[in-house]
Amino acid sequence: MEKTSTEAENPLRQGLRLERTPEPSTILIFGASGDLTRRKLVPALFRLARQNLLPGGFSILGTGRSRFSHEEFRRRMREAVDEFVSEPVDSNAWEHFSSGIFYTPTDLDDPQSLERLGGLLQEIDQGRGTSGNRLIYFSTPPSLYVPIARMLGSAGLNRSKGWTRVVVEKPFGHDLPSMQELNREILEVFSEEQVYRIDHYLGKETVQNILVLRFSNGIFEPLWNRRYIDHIQITAAESLGVEGRGGYFDQAGTLRDMIQNHLFQIFSLIAMEPPASLEASEVRDEKTKVIRAIRPFSPERVDQFAVRGQYGPGAVNGSPVPGYREEPGVAPESSADTYAAVKLLVDNWRWAGVPFYLRSAKCMPKRVTEVAVQFREAPHLLFEDSQPLEPNVLTLRIQPDEGITLRFGAKLPGQGFKIRTVNMDFRYGTSFGRKLPEAYERLLLDAMLGDSTLFARGDTVELCWRLLTPILEAWQAPAAHFPNYQAGSWGPKESGDFMKREGRRWSRL
Amino acid sequence: MEKTSTEAENPLRQGLRLERTPEPSTILIFGASGDLTRRKLVPALFRLARQNLLPGGFSILGTGRSRFSHEEFRRRMREAVDEFVSEPVDSNAWEHFSSGIFYTPTDLDDPQSLERLGGLLQEIDQGRGTSGNRLIYFSTPPSLYVPIARMLGSAGLNRSKGWTRVVVEKPFGHDLPSMQELNREILEVFSEEQVYRIDHYLGKETVQNILVLRFSNGIFEPLWNRRYIDHIQITAAESLGVEGRGGYFDQAGTLRDMIQNHLFQIFSLIAMEPPASLEASEVRDEKTKVIRAIRPFSPERVDQFAVRGQYGPGAVNGSPVPGYREEPGVAPESSADTYAAVKLLVDNWRWAGVPFYLRSAKCMPKRVTEVAVQFREAPHLLFEDSQPLEPNVLTLRIQPDEGITLRFGAKLPGQGFKIRTVNMDFRYGTSFGRKLPEAYERLLLDAMLGDSTLFARGDTVELCWRLLTPILEAWQAPAAHFPNYQAGSWGPKESGDFMKREGRRWSRL
Repeated sequence: MEKTSTEAENPLRQGLRLERTPEPSTILIFGASGDLTRRKLVPALFRLARQNLLPGGFSILGTGRSRFSHEEFRRRMREAVDEFVSEPVDSNAWEHFSSGIFYTPTDLDDPQSLERLGGLLQEIDQGRGTSGNRLIYFSTPPSLYVPIARMLGSAGLNRSKGWTRVVVEKPFGHDLPSMQELNREILEVFSEEQVYRIDHYLGKETVQNILVLRFSNGIFEPLWNRRYIDHIQITAAESLGVEGRGGYFDQAGTLRDMIQNHLFQIFSLIAMEPPASLEASEVRDEKTKVIRAIRPFSPERVDQFAVRGQYGPGAVNGSPVPGYREEPGVAPESSADTYAAVKLLVDNWRWAGVPFYLRSAKCMPKRVTEVAVQFREAPHLLFEDSQPLEPNVLTLRIQPDEGITLRFGAKLPGQGFKIRTVNMDFRYGTSFGRKLPEAYERLLLDAMLGDSTLFARGDTVELCWRLLTPILEAWQAPAAHFPNYQAGSWGPKESGDFMKREGRRWSRL
Repeated sequence: MEKTSTEAENPLRQGLRLERTPEPSTILIFGASGDLTRRKLVPALFRLARQNLLPGGFSILGTGRSRFSHEEFRRRMREAVDEFVSEPVDSNAWEHFSSGIFYTPTDLDDPQSLERLGGLLQEIDQGRGTSGNRLIYFSTPPSLYVPIARMLGSAGLNRSKGWTRVVVEKPFGHDLPSMQELNREILEVFSEEQVYRIDHYLGKETVQNILVLRFSNGIFEPLWNRRYIDHIQITAAESLGVEGRGGYFDQAGTLRDMIQNHLFQIFSLIAMEPPASLEASEVRDEKTKVIRAIRPFSPERVDQFAVRGQYGPGAVNGSPVPGYREEPGVAPESSADTYAAVKLLVDNWRWAGVPFYLRSAKCMPKRVTEVAVQFREAPHLLFEDSQPLEPNVLTLRIQPDEGITLRFGAKLPGQGFKIRTVNMDFRYGTSFGRKLPEAYERLLLDAMLGDSTLFARGDTVELCWRLLTPILEAWQAPAAHFPNYQAGSWGPKESGDFMKREGRRWSRL
């Protein structure tokens, strides 16, 4: 029997704020020989173990098409931990941790291999006391999500005598119909409460801090509305190109790969109303509500709300970079967007008339994700100055150089009342004595604890796809003007022109 | 003829914000052999000259009872500049500057010496082209203000063919009647527009920045009222004792010496409504208006609004300090307040119910002047935590370590939503490439330019004395409990108890 889930237990009221340890459980990883397992999942689990945040008996069962013995898989994972955990790995700690690591190959078409998997899970339950609690992690190419779900269902692995939860990696669908189809298939096997759609941006400290900043302070929320805010920019700039993922990316593009998920999630945390509590259902209801308030894009006027771009050859930080179309796996006439910017209007009392600009791009001069809240100017200018006054901006730096900056006007020392723009700064790095945890640590732990607050709910994901459909459809038309920006530049001229028409400018990153 | 003054010329609209140079003029300093001239006035004038902010022909005429030749006085001033200007003094620059320095002794009872003074002023006008523009600086003990004013009047030196302005140092009176008497006497000789009552705190960049912070930014003014602010603390703590000024201080006390002038001036800039313009009359009208809105202290209930203290022996920063009553010039049973704290209530729409706490003291563990604006707590606490949440505080650091700090809650990295208080910081030192100018530079220049914005107007000073009268009278009663705090401590227990009754605490300095 699946135990009652987050919503029913209300763990956030009961003590998520105390350090909680999950019940003894096993994580079953599909795609265990893949990159995500090696780079993120097992290193995160090892770090959690070292902080004593994992339960006794915690076990990892890797599976996939590859054939490894338990020992071979452990050795691979040890290498992964050595490579991706920055602190030196203590051998005793590793021995203890790795004694709970297992592997079995699975062939989705072979009922016998499924039986073996089920048997092994039961053995682990008995041998390590994990009581049938299982976190099943879909870390495979998305094309396998449905086959795996079906297989789990037919083998009866969608239920256990403990709890069973599934974590599904992005992309969750490719467009509205494919998302709906995927969701339908998964919900035939699992209930919505069992499904944890991961968006690793929600695991970032700086993203979670949006809630804390807004709702634990008396001074920000009063300013957080159309009366004081002119507009908000949410930017995720990458300095890298597609890095060998050309085959996948060429089918996706930036709008799908970054904006539909990560930037919409950040948007919803920035724009949502205060939830009644931090319970998962309350928080996710509010997020969905504000996404529902986004004004739908008119299919005839996509140009007024979105800009796309694709980089050509150039140089990033002095190193030459080939054009996107020259990347392996990319079609020579590809119209995939490596730059995407979208303007959202939110039709509610708080945000009427306040545009949100979301942009993301590859091959930018700099890697930076940030939210820039630009306030209206002072309503009356008491001070005359030769330089025009810059408006106040509160910048939440999501990554890297995590922190918060407030830009404001101060008196330039000397005669008269000349004003200069200065910054007030807060940095995580210098303020807390500890390194920020990795997003996956938080999210894996939350999933084991049954807290879905920081996971995307199906209806929200569907809403995002629905909203973006007119743009996705318009952008299927070949882009004759591609490439339209140089690798290493700040994006296409069209994008600057777009903001000029808005009477604004993209924030300096 | 006195030229039309600030108000009429409206120089703040016309271009105070451009670097302006005063018209050729002479500064006539009474008390030229005194400490203020040596430490502040001449060093400030020399720094202004070096920045080319003084007019050609600018001259200094020192006078006083001491007998110096021009050369002797120049030599003394050169020593002063060497000692009190931090940058090395260029000999050519000094030669040029000192060629405009003159001295003549004056005996206020000797009409001949006054004639000599008048003659010398005319000679300077002719020889150096200063056109009769004169800034007369009262840098003498206050007992001489009236005799000097009368003398200037009888010698016809209260008017000239250019402009004549007088700068009067604090203290401007000792209580309400003496202030009124002093004001009446001075205004018999000079018009209010000619009188510049100096409060050097208004010359500080950080004090002027209060106006810029409030009125050039879109984000502070909306929060600057009873709806969001719980209370405001204005503190001027000194680590020194009376430093040889025991004779003067024992007649004054901290309430007179610091609160009546400096802290009330800071209060008025913090609390005032936005002025219609930066014109002197507009700014000073608004300051007066908010001081007029302070609820008068009931003479019977002074204890509910004020706390006094006097330090006994102790140690500041490890060095032993004698008790106040052991200082030279101090009466052995003195009841002078070396610690004073006052609670102001402001009866207007903006501040109803928001107390302002002003405190100043000697022999504190630290020298610091600051304004701490403490905001109300978030109206609803979404996050449960073991530690109670600290309210947001915006701290304007007036001196030293000039800057601004915003205290707010951020998410503690790790599980759940634990909140920790962190700071955002702005420092003048690192933000502007130049050293902050000395208060006297700004004020001397403003007086020469005819801009009285940063000077105290007679009616304002009178209001402050009137307000404090009930406290001054109550505190004339001997203080049997003195001394009530140790030198080097944070003040008397009574003061902490006072804040406890208010349900608040003094801010950590």
